[in-house]
Amino acid sequence: MLERVIAGDRRALARLLTWIENDDPAAAPILAGLYPHTGRAHRVGVTGAPGTGKSTLVTGLARAYRARGATVGVIAVDPTSPFTGGAILGDRVRMRDLAGDAGIFIRSMATRGSLGGLARATRDVARALDAAGFDAILIETVGAGQSEVDIARMAQSVIVVDAPGMGDEVQAIKAGILEIADILVVNKADRAGADKTAQALRMMVELGHGDTGWLPPVLLTVASAGTGIDAVIAALDAHHAHLATTGAGARLGRVQVEIELRERLRERLLADCMARLGADGIAAEIARVEGGEIDPRAAVEAILARAYGMVGETAQADAAETGRGR
Amino acid sequence: MLERVIAGDRRALARLLTWIENDDPAAAPILAGLYPHTGRAHRVGVTGAPGTGKSTLVTGLARAYRARGATVGVIAVDPTSPFTGGAILGDRVRMRDLAGDAGIFIRSMATRGSLGGLARATRDVARALDAAGFDAILIETVGAGQSEVDIARMAQSVIVVDAPGMGDEVQAIKAGILEIADILVVNKADRAGADKTAQALRMMVELGHGDTGWLPPVLLTVASAGTGIDAVIAALDAHHAHLATTGAGARLGRVQVEIELRERLRERLLADCMARLGADGIAAEIARVEGGEIDPRAAVEAILARAYGMVGETAQADAAETGRGR
Repeated sequence: MLERVIAGDRRALARLLTWIENDDPAAAPILAGLYPHTGRAHRVGVTGAPGTGKSTLVTGLARAYRARGATVGVIAVDPTSPFTGGAILGDRVRMRDLAGDAGIFIRSMATRGSLGGLARATRDVARALDAAGFDAILIETVGAGQSEVDIARMAQSVIVVDAPGMGDEVQAIKAGILEIADILVVNKADRAGADKTAQALRMMVELGHGDTGWLPPVLLTVASAGTGIDAVIAALDAHHAHLATTGAGARLGRVQVEIELRERLRERLLADCMARLGADGIAAEIARVEGGEIDPRAAVEAILARAYGMVGETAQADAAETGRGR
Repeated sequence: MLERVIAGDRRALARLLTWIENDDPAAAPILAGLYPHTGRAHRVGVTGAPGTGKSTLVTGLARAYRARGATVGVIAVDPTSPFTGGAILGDRVRMRDLAGDAGIFIRSMATRGSLGGLARATRDVARALDAAGFDAILIETVGAGQSEVDIARMAQSVIVVDAPGMGDEVQAIKAGILEIADILVVNKADRAGADKTAQALRMMVELGHGDTGWLPPVLLTVASAGTGIDAVIAALDAHHAHLATTGAGARLGRVQVEIELRERLRERLLADCMARLGADGIAAEIARVEGGEIDPRAAVEAILARAYGMVGETAQADAAETGRGR
């Protein structure tokens, strides 16, 4: 399996991705074996509000990479999908045009359990595509709260897509997304107000720009007509080179690894704690908190005492507390 | 301090909320002491996309509660604020009209560190307001990804606000928000298309409705003119009564406590693990992962072995792994 994925066998790859999505234990040893083969692909995140034309832009970028002979993995992440059935990133019709091409691999990912689980799985899917030899990996997600943060934590270059006429309050949200943008794209630039939108973004970028040596460019595209795509590819190449030559890439890599290790530690420690507690788990403490007997902090200390014999500083104080009627 | 908060002293309360926001250790014993006094207020979450008029609706609801003699705490949560400076929920002007009223307490909360930290602090702020005797606690947040999930996890009744003309893709996102809605409000109902929006929401609610015994009503308001607010209050009262009489409230309470305890356990366990590792923390493992020597899963097992002497099932397998050039 490991060798087949590295050799670029699509069926083996698809199977591994399914294991990753299902949190199947069979994925872990394969991912460990693939890990030394990762780190070569350019991981590009694409995010932005609904209606900006992200999917069309991603399709255009994939075509442009293919035109110069590069292979492309596309991961479409829909954090809202337990509810919508993937409707937000449902615009896979155009992408399906690409699907006959052996140099492109497309995977849609939906939330099954937690958002945290989706982010973890997306990171591993990107690694598998990287090890399988894809040159560029495009990770697309809906621009909505946590998803942008997640995508910024696993991509090397982040494109934030905007479009004219998205309204004032959406504009305010965009200020939040700007922080993670390496490249800004005003798509649907044939619409009225595109220049004004681009101007506003340029101002925000210049005002909010830290001393990183990279000023995010603001580019205009009409992705549905293929207009402006080449300039976005050029900006991606420039950013990739910037990361490689300035040490910014190594710094980014360390921060991303640290975030991942802390996330994994949290989950692993909780699983270990739960395993020690036995079948009833934390039911007794839930009941005591629900009954107003102890507060959640004290309950956590009680759980830790039961699992590990740990006694925290608040546990004693809370033990002395007499719960008044609630 | 404890007694002053319970007695409704606004200055003591404001000080406690600041401690909570700053994660000041002084807050913990006060919160433990307040806990037996919580559980009386009706916690109402209000969420929805930007531009739907959430803040105006919250102001209208607060006025309506006051008109019948109930006291109101308002918590405005802005998960985007490290970037925007609170611009999204910046419409505090109308709310300021309420601020002279001793029966209303308004608090804006912004992300300082992590989103998880904001959710935790918001929950504790709601508890403090509850213990201080406020009858209704309105928790307002921007409808964007994780924030809705968070608000649904701490409110008893969730209002999702919509407005006519928000576009098709936004419509798809709304399907995600519907899952957490107990009451749907189409605000700005004097605009064209309000009936169509309400009709679409009713259809989605009926289709997606589980067997919970509560069918979320779809209500039309023009919050800026005060129109329709009384019906929303009546629906809130009905939902509150539904929770109390059917056992749904007790089930919801248990689920919310369980989620909170698991979140707190995760953080507490990670902090303990980090404390055991000493000054260098996980720097060595970060470097090994960055160098392609071991994969993140193996790094986590190595960290656990160092902190606790734990050896997981993957640790041995990974130790046997020889890292090939990367």
